[in-house]
Amino acid sequence: MPSTVIGSVQGVDARYVLKPGEGVDAIHNTEMYGYGAARIGAGALGGTGLAFTLGGGNELIVAAIDHFGQALVGREIEELMAGFGRVFRSIADDPQYRWVGPHKGVVHLALGAITNACWDLWAKARGVPLWKLIVDLSPAQLLAAIDLSYLEDVLTRDEALALLDAEAPGRAERATVIERGYPGYDTSVGWFNYSDDEVLDRAKEALGAGFGALKLKVGSPDQERDVRRAFALRELVGPDVRVMVDANQQWTLPQALEVGHKLAPMHPFWIEEPTHPDDVEAHRVLARALAPIHIAAGEAVPNRVIFKNLLQADAIGIVQVDASRVGGVSEFLAISLLARRFGKPVVPHVGDMGQIHQHLVLANRIALGMPELFLEYIPHLRAYFTQPAEVRDGRYVTPTRPGASSDLVPGAGLPGGPGSDSGSGARA
Amino acid sequence: MPSTVIGSVQGVDARYVLKPGEGVDAIHNTEMYGYGAARIGAGALGGTGLAFTLGGGNELIVAAIDHFGQALVGREIEELMAGFGRVFRSIADDPQYRWVGPHKGVVHLALGAITNACWDLWAKARGVPLWKLIVDLSPAQLLAAIDLSYLEDVLTRDEALALLDAEAPGRAERATVIERGYPGYDTSVGWFNYSDDEVLDRAKEALGAGFGALKLKVGSPDQERDVRRAFALRELVGPDVRVMVDANQQWTLPQALEVGHKLAPMHPFWIEEPTHPDDVEAHRVLARALAPIHIAAGEAVPNRVIFKNLLQADAIGIVQVDASRVGGVSEFLAISLLARRFGKPVVPHVGDMGQIHQHLVLANRIALGMPELFLEYIPHLRAYFTQPAEVRDGRYVTPTRPGASSDLVPGAGLPGGPGSDSGSGARA
Repeated sequence: MPSTVIGSVQGVDARYVLKPGEGVDAIHNTEMYGYGAARIGAGALGGTGLAFTLGGGNELIVAAIDHFGQALVGREIEELMAGFGRVFRSIADDPQYRWVGPHKGVVHLALGAITNACWDLWAKARGVPLWKLIVDLSPAQLLAAIDLSYLEDVLTRDEALALLDAEAPGRAERATVIERGYPGYDTSVGWFNYSDDEVLDRAKEALGAGFGALKLKVGSPDQERDVRRAFALRELVGPDVRVMVDANQQWTLPQALEVGHKLAPMHPFWIEEPTHPDDVEAHRVLARALAPIHIAAGEAVPNRVIFKNLLQADAIGIVQVDASRVGGVSEFLAISLLARRFGKPVVPHVGDMGQIHQHLVLANRIALGMPELFLEYIPHLRAYFTQPAEVRDGRYVTPTRPGASSDLVPGAGLPGGPGSDSGSGARA
Repeated sequence: MPSTVIGSVQGVDARYVLKPGEGVDAIHNTEMYGYGAARIGAGALGGTGLAFTLGGGNELIVAAIDHFGQALVGREIEELMAGFGRVFRSIADDPQYRWVGPHKGVVHLALGAITNACWDLWAKARGVPLWKLIVDLSPAQLLAAIDLSYLEDVLTRDEALALLDAEAPGRAERATVIERGYPGYDTSVGWFNYSDDEVLDRAKEALGAGFGALKLKVGSPDQERDVRRAFALRELVGPDVRVMVDANQQWTLPQALEVGHKLAPMHPFWIEEPTHPDDVEAHRVLARALAPIHIAAGEAVPNRVIFKNLLQADAIGIVQVDASRVGGVSEFLAISLLARRFGKPVVPHVGDMGQIHQHLVLANRIALGMPELFLEYIPHLRAYFTQPAEVRDGRYVTPTRPGASSDLVPGAGLPGGPGSDSGSGARA
């Protein structure tokens, strides 16, 4: 049997230049994606864990990964994951580094990357894809890998166990999604700087490719531009295709109310990130004012505690937690349990380009009984993954190879990236 | 006239070993304080800006300061500060680094350090202490140095102007505090690992030194220890001295309710950081359940948006914003304006050991009409500041020298610290 003892943990700074217009929204305009990635070596096996970025700041995450990762060296992966919730908390509560979070920002992204690398390695050690690893864990084993602290007022460990047990009967029925494939939706039709015509052309292509849901970037200083494009897209796709709009935090609350009411007649399925991601109360006000349009948020929400507040306030109808933003797969699952408890669907943001989340939505569907909605699809980094996600007829093809589909092509991307001679370390 | 054009901005990694027991609370136990500091050079003048840490993670803040600081090189300080609110927002919204916050964690601490260095340099360029710089600005000038975005639903710029104008009549009366000195309170009597006897001995000393308010660390896994020490301290000091207890985020909400009710009969003036700092709803519940005991929080609250939510929910009665945690003096003032708007006092946490905040409480008192309460005093780093704060008869002696009292003694602290040959840069 090959060694599954962790021999090394190293940060990797991966940056990828996108094509013109790709990835650009109302605030992020540099056409670059990146990962502060954790790379675990364990004998012949390797685990890769992703924290998503826009390139800049990778050097900070990599430095934090290099620091935190040392605590894992020498641990055997099965033994580690049998109590990973405690390990997670001990890193999150490092008595010095905790201060520069806590549980948010650079240090939490580093913890997330390390956590994701551990889950990837665990699945590879067992020779199964991540989704299968998770659905085959007993409820007690699953919860042992998760830190549920600070959720006690709404979800105790016993309540989480009962919730998982209660979902056992319908598992076989729900597992039929494995064969069919999980539905996708296309984010890349409507980047912010695409012309009106370009958006419509790409929307036609997406419909032709089988997608039944599309997203448009809004949040322009020119409100009329946002409204014009949204209505044109609705007119093109008809009433039955779901259209989502995404303001990337660029509205004040008064502006969000104003534009939201203007957009309501084109029936967006959700309005995403209408204002500052920390502003739970503003999201609550918007959810009340704009119902039945859903308010969606999560890509910039760092941890389970803020998701708890968002759910307690009924401030979001769609939980867009991203395992490459929060503390990795473990905290993603904690937040999914919370969402289940509050009866809200998890529709992840995919900073990982869906690589990890194609596993996690299957696990949420089968083990947690989460509704089958759709998973965001962004194809811009396909060339940089060794096993890029496959979408056919608008559905993700269920991955079968061991692990979390997170491994990056060595030597690809900008110099200093994964597998290059310079290895990890700070970059200007 | 000396040049006030910024020639350089550099991060400085300053770490200081404390004496046994000092600075230790229920979660932070390494007896070390530190600063990720920004050092601005401008001809013969220099500005120092502090972001507080517990040592570890300084290297991340320093790297971010080195990155963000380049945008300020070549700017003249008066011209810069005349529109610093816009500069602040442009750094906070850097299109790549924004993602690894946003507006929190390492990148926000770096922005805070840079902001503080700019205010220090500005005051030195004018030859006045920081408090005088601030109180001599017109309301319009003051607001131009602050980013009020995302507060529009509760405080527009016009409303902030009106608030400042309305406080003008009482300024002369309130300015008498300059002569008397701002009252202090003593945090260092009750560190977590001090024995019961040591706490009582130090409390007696503090009373003898003129302090009328003391703080005790709680948050122990052993609730009876917390309760025993709190009642013993109350018995020693009598009913008229204010005693505050501080749990440093270590209770779940159910635990906080339980211990809070046990502590109520000893009449703590406030209970500080009862649970996770991101959990606005839990603070709201506690404030309702434990009134008239105040809930205090802020040392781990990263920005004005979360303070806005805390105030909207009436979740905290004491606003413990720290200018060495949030985006520096500018965001401290934004949060103070918010607190004034909601009628809550600002009683800063002093990661800066009161060096900057001795100025800011005077500015808040005189310009904003904030009530005169007391400012935390922690003497553990006195040897490392070139102009350490002076407390006499329980009151801060109003600083008279130009600047924000933030300059660190060169070469002091651990190797690699301020003014050492190695300068800034990453440290393991």
